[in-house]
Amino acid sequence: MSHQPRDSETADIDFEMDPEKFRELGYRLVDAMTEHLRAESRNPVLSPVSGEQSRKAFDQPAPQSGRSADEVFDEAIAALGSFSRRNGHPRFFGYVCASADPVGILADFVASASNQILTAWRSAPGAVEMERQVVRWLDELLGFQGQGHGLLVSGGSAANAHGLACAVAAAREAAPDRELTLYLSQEAHLSLHQAAKSLGIADHRLRRLPVDPDRRLVVADLERALTDDLAQGLRPACVCASAGTANTGAVDPLEAIAGVCRRFKVWFHIDGAYGAPAALTESHGHLKRGFARADSLSVDPHKWLFAPFDVGCSLVRDPQASHRAFSRSSEYIRVENQNENEQFAFFDHGPELSRRFRALKVWAILNVHGAQGLGKEIQRQIDLRRYLDQRIAETPELEALGSDLSISCFRYRPTAEPNDEMLNPLNRHILETLVTEGSFLLSPTTLDGKYSLRICIVNFRTQRSDMDLLVEEVLRLGRGWADRFPG
Amino acid sequence: MSHQPRDSETADIDFEMDPEKFRELGYRLVDAMTEHLRAESRNPVLSPVSGEQSRKAFDQPAPQSGRSADEVFDEAIAALGSFSRRNGHPRFFGYVCASADPVGILADFVASASNQILTAWRSAPGAVEMERQVVRWLDELLGFQGQGHGLLVSGGSAANAHGLACAVAAAREAAPDRELTLYLSQEAHLSLHQAAKSLGIADHRLRRLPVDPDRRLVVADLERALTDDLAQGLRPACVCASAGTANTGAVDPLEAIAGVCRRFKVWFHIDGAYGAPAALTESHGHLKRGFARADSLSVDPHKWLFAPFDVGCSLVRDPQASHRAFSRSSEYIRVENQNENEQFAFFDHGPELSRRFRALKVWAILNVHGAQGLGKEIQRQIDLRRYLDQRIAETPELEALGSDLSISCFRYRPTAEPNDEMLNPLNRHILETLVTEGSFLLSPTTLDGKYSLRICIVNFRTQRSDMDLLVEEVLRLGRGWADRFPG
Repeated sequence: MSHQPRDSETADIDFEMDPEKFRELGYRLVDAMTEHLRAESRNPVLSPVSGEQSRKAFDQPAPQSGRSADEVFDEAIAALGSFSRRNGHPRFFGYVCASADPVGILADFVASASNQILTAWRSAPGAVEMERQVVRWLDELLGFQGQGHGLLVSGGSAANAHGLACAVAAAREAAPDRELTLYLSQEAHLSLHQAAKSLGIADHRLRRLPVDPDRRLVVADLERALTDDLAQGLRPACVCASAGTANTGAVDPLEAIAGVCRRFKVWFHIDGAYGAPAALTESHGHLKRGFARADSLSVDPHKWLFAPFDVGCSLVRDPQASHRAFSRSSEYIRVENQNENEQFAFFDHGPELSRRFRALKVWAILNVHGAQGLGKEIQRQIDLRRYLDQRIAETPELEALGSDLSISCFRYRPTAEPNDEMLNPLNRHILETLVTEGSFLLSPTTLDGKYSLRICIVNFRTQRSDMDLLVEEVLRLGRGWADRFPG
Repeated sequence: MSHQPRDSETADIDFEMDPEKFRELGYRLVDAMTEHLRAESRNPVLSPVSGEQSRKAFDQPAPQSGRSADEVFDEAIAALGSFSRRNGHPRFFGYVCASADPVGILADFVASASNQILTAWRSAPGAVEMERQVVRWLDELLGFQGQGHGLLVSGGSAANAHGLACAVAAAREAAPDRELTLYLSQEAHLSLHQAAKSLGIADHRLRRLPVDPDRRLVVADLERALTDDLAQGLRPACVCASAGTANTGAVDPLEAIAGVCRRFKVWFHIDGAYGAPAALTESHGHLKRGFARADSLSVDPHKWLFAPFDVGCSLVRDPQASHRAFSRSSEYIRVENQNENEQFAFFDHGPELSRRFRALKVWAILNVHGAQGLGKEIQRQIDLRRYLDQRIAETPELEALGSDLSISCFRYRPTAEPNDEMLNPLNRHILETLVTEGSFLLSPTTLDGKYSLRICIVNFRTQRSDMDLLVEEVLRLGRGWADRFPG
C-alpha cells in the first residue's frame, strides 16, 4: 500500500488541531515564555499569597463544555503568573532548586511533541538510544568508570531508591535468610530512609552514624558498626555516602569508605543527587576517584546540570544488579544471535513501564555547553560560595556554621553576644523578613540546635553582587532587631 | 529595596540565553513540531531499523566543548526523525499508547518553561492548586464521589503502586501481626504484582483468581478465597479489580466486587489506568457506579485523555490513608489556625519529593474539550471498535477472540480450518508483515494459547476507513499464506 499522507482525511477529525493553529498558538506561547524568562530576575522571588487566594483562582467545577485554546492558555498563564515562585531568580537560594537552562526548556518541548514512550528499544529506537547515550555520558564525565549502565528517573529520591533496590536484591540473593542492615550518616538524605523502609529494611536496622565537625561520616564508626553487625549474624546490604548533603553540602570521605566496603564486601552507594556534577570542576575533580569505586551513584540533572524538572539518574556498575532487582523475567537469558540493543528494555532495569522522554533535555544541555562549559559554570558557583564565606569570615557579626560545594550556612550573631536562646528567633526573623520582602528566598536549616541562614547556589544567574546584597541585608535586619531588643 | 529588573547584569552571564535568541529558536522548534504533527498520519508507523543503525546515530563520546544550540537541535530532530515510532499514527493499534493532544503538548511546554516544583503548596502555590483542582475534576468527572483527594504520578504502574501502598498501610495498622493477602484476576495488570512484591506481600499470598468467558473476575471465587484466608488467620489487604484489562479491555463486575469488599471490610482498588475515562461516555457511564464504591482508583490521563507522557493519577477516598502510607511526620496534626491549603504537601501523600508540573497539560485538555468533548471522542473510539467487531462477525475467515471498550482481539482462521497449531504461526506472519510494511502497528497477545491480532484504539486520528483497511489487509495476507501453505 502507498505511504502517502492523508491530510484531507485528518482535517475532518474533530479533535485534531489544524497545523497552522498549532504553529500560531505555539508562537504565542514562545512569546509568553520569552517574557517569563526575561522576568526571572525580577523581584519578588515569591509574592505574598494566602491559601485562600490561590484556592480561589482554581475553584471552578470541572468543565463540561469546551472553550478556545487561546482563552484557556491566557487564563492559565495569568493565574500561574501571580502564584509562582521564581525558581530561576538570581537570589533564589532555597532547598536545592536550580535555574532551568533555556536549552533544556526547548528540548523538553520537543520531547513532549515527539511523545515517545521509552519502555524498550523496540518502542522508541532513537529516544532509547539517546537515553542510553546520556547515561554513558554521565558515567564517563563523572568518572564512574562503569559500563554506562543505568537509567533516568524522576529525581534524587527515585535514583536513591533505585540504587538501594539493586543493593538489597543482591544482598537478599547472597544471603536469603539473614536480616539486612544499612549504613548512612546522620546527615544523609531522607529519601534513603524512605527507600530502605519501602524495601523492607526494619527501621532499627538502619545505622545512622555520627559525623565529624565538618559533618562527614566517621569511617572508624562505620567499620565498628559493620564488625558488630556481622558478629551478630546480620547481613550488611549497603553503605550510603553523600557527595553533597542537603544541609551543608558536606562530602563524605568517599575513597576511605570505598576501601571499607571492599574489605567488608558491602555494596557502596553514593548519593550525588546534588553534588556529583562538581566532579566536572577543577576544584572538585577529585570526587571522581570516589565515584570510580562506588557500586551505584545517583545524580540529578535537574539540579546542577540545569535541566528543567524532572530528571534524575541512577548509575549502576553491574547491569545484572538492576536486572535482578527489577526484571519481570526470571532469568537473564542473552540470545546470542540477536542484537543486544534490540533486546534492551528499561522495564528490565527499573520500576516504570511508561517512561517519558527525559533524555532529550540532558542531551541538548550537554551538547550545547559541553563538559567544559558546565564545569566552568559550576566552578563559578562554588567560587561564589567561597566569596560569601570570605565575607562572613570578615564580618564579626556573622558566624559561619558549615559550608561545602555551593552551600553555606551562617547566622547573625551580634558582637554583644546575646544568649543562644535569643539567636534562633532573631535569625528566624531575618530569614522570614527577607522572604516576605521578596528580594531573597532562603530555606532555613537547624544545625546542632542553631537556626541557620542557609544558601544553596545552583543558579547561573547568581552573581557576586547578590552575595554582597545578602550580607548587607542580613546586617541591616539583624541590627534593626538588635536595636529593638538590645541584649 | 527596589523591585527592578536587572537585565543589564544578566546579559553578561555566560550561561543565560538571550531572550530574542530563545524566541527565535522557539519559533523554529514550533515550526519543526508543526511538521512533525502534520506527518503523524504518514506511513510508515515505524521504519525498519536495526539496533546497529540506531546505536551508530548515538555513539559519540561525551561532548567536551559546546556547540551552537541551532546545530544541536537540528541534529537531534534529524536523528530522532529516522528512529521514532509514530505513536499518533491513525493505524497505531499497539499496547495502550494514545495520540497526544496538541493542546497538551503546548501546555507541557509552558510547564517546562515555568519549571515549578510541586513538593508542597509553599513551593508553588499556583501549580499545586492547579494539580489539586485537576485531581478534584477527575474525581468529579469519573463519579468517584470522593473528596477530590489524590495526586498525579508518572503513570499506571505508579498509580497502582500508590493505591496499593495506601491499602497495605491501612491493613498493617489494623492488623500488625497478620500476614497480608491480595486478590486480583488472572487478567490483572503486571504492575499490580510488581507493586505487591515491592510492598512486601509474599508471592504465594497473591490470589490470582480465575475469569469467566468474558475474562472478568468471578465473584463467587473471590468470596471463597476471602473466606478461606480469613479462616486461616490471614489478613486480606486489598481486592484489585480492572476497569479495562490490557489484553481485551475487560471490565470486572465492579459493583458486585464492591459489595463483597464492604461485607469483608477489605480495601477495594480499581485499576482504571486505561479504561476509567470511558465513564465519560453514554455507553459506559455506568462505570461510575462502581468507581463510587472504590477506596482507590487509578487513571492515566496520558492514555485515554490524550495527554503527552507522562501523567497518571491516583484517586484515594480517605486522605488519611495516603498520609499513613507516605508521611514523614509521625502524626497527622492539623494546626487549626493555619489554612489547610498552606499546610498541604504532596510529599505527605506520595513517594516523590521533586515533582514535575504534570497538571497543566491535563488542566488545559479538560478546559479546551470539556468533559463532553472528551466523552464524545472516547465514545467514537468505542464505536469504531464495535464497527470492527461487526466486520469480524460478518467475515467467515475472521474469528473474534474477545473485546471490550476500545480493544478487540481476533485472528485469521481460513474456512478450510487447519489445525490450531498452524493458526499461530499464520497469524504471527500476518502481524509481523503488517508491522514490517509500516502501514499498521499492532502488538500481539496470546489468549488461551491462541496468538491474537489485538488492536487498541486510543487515537483521535483513527477512522472507519482504518478498520476497513485492517480487515482488507489481514485477509490479503492470510489468503496469501494459505495459498503458499495450503492446509
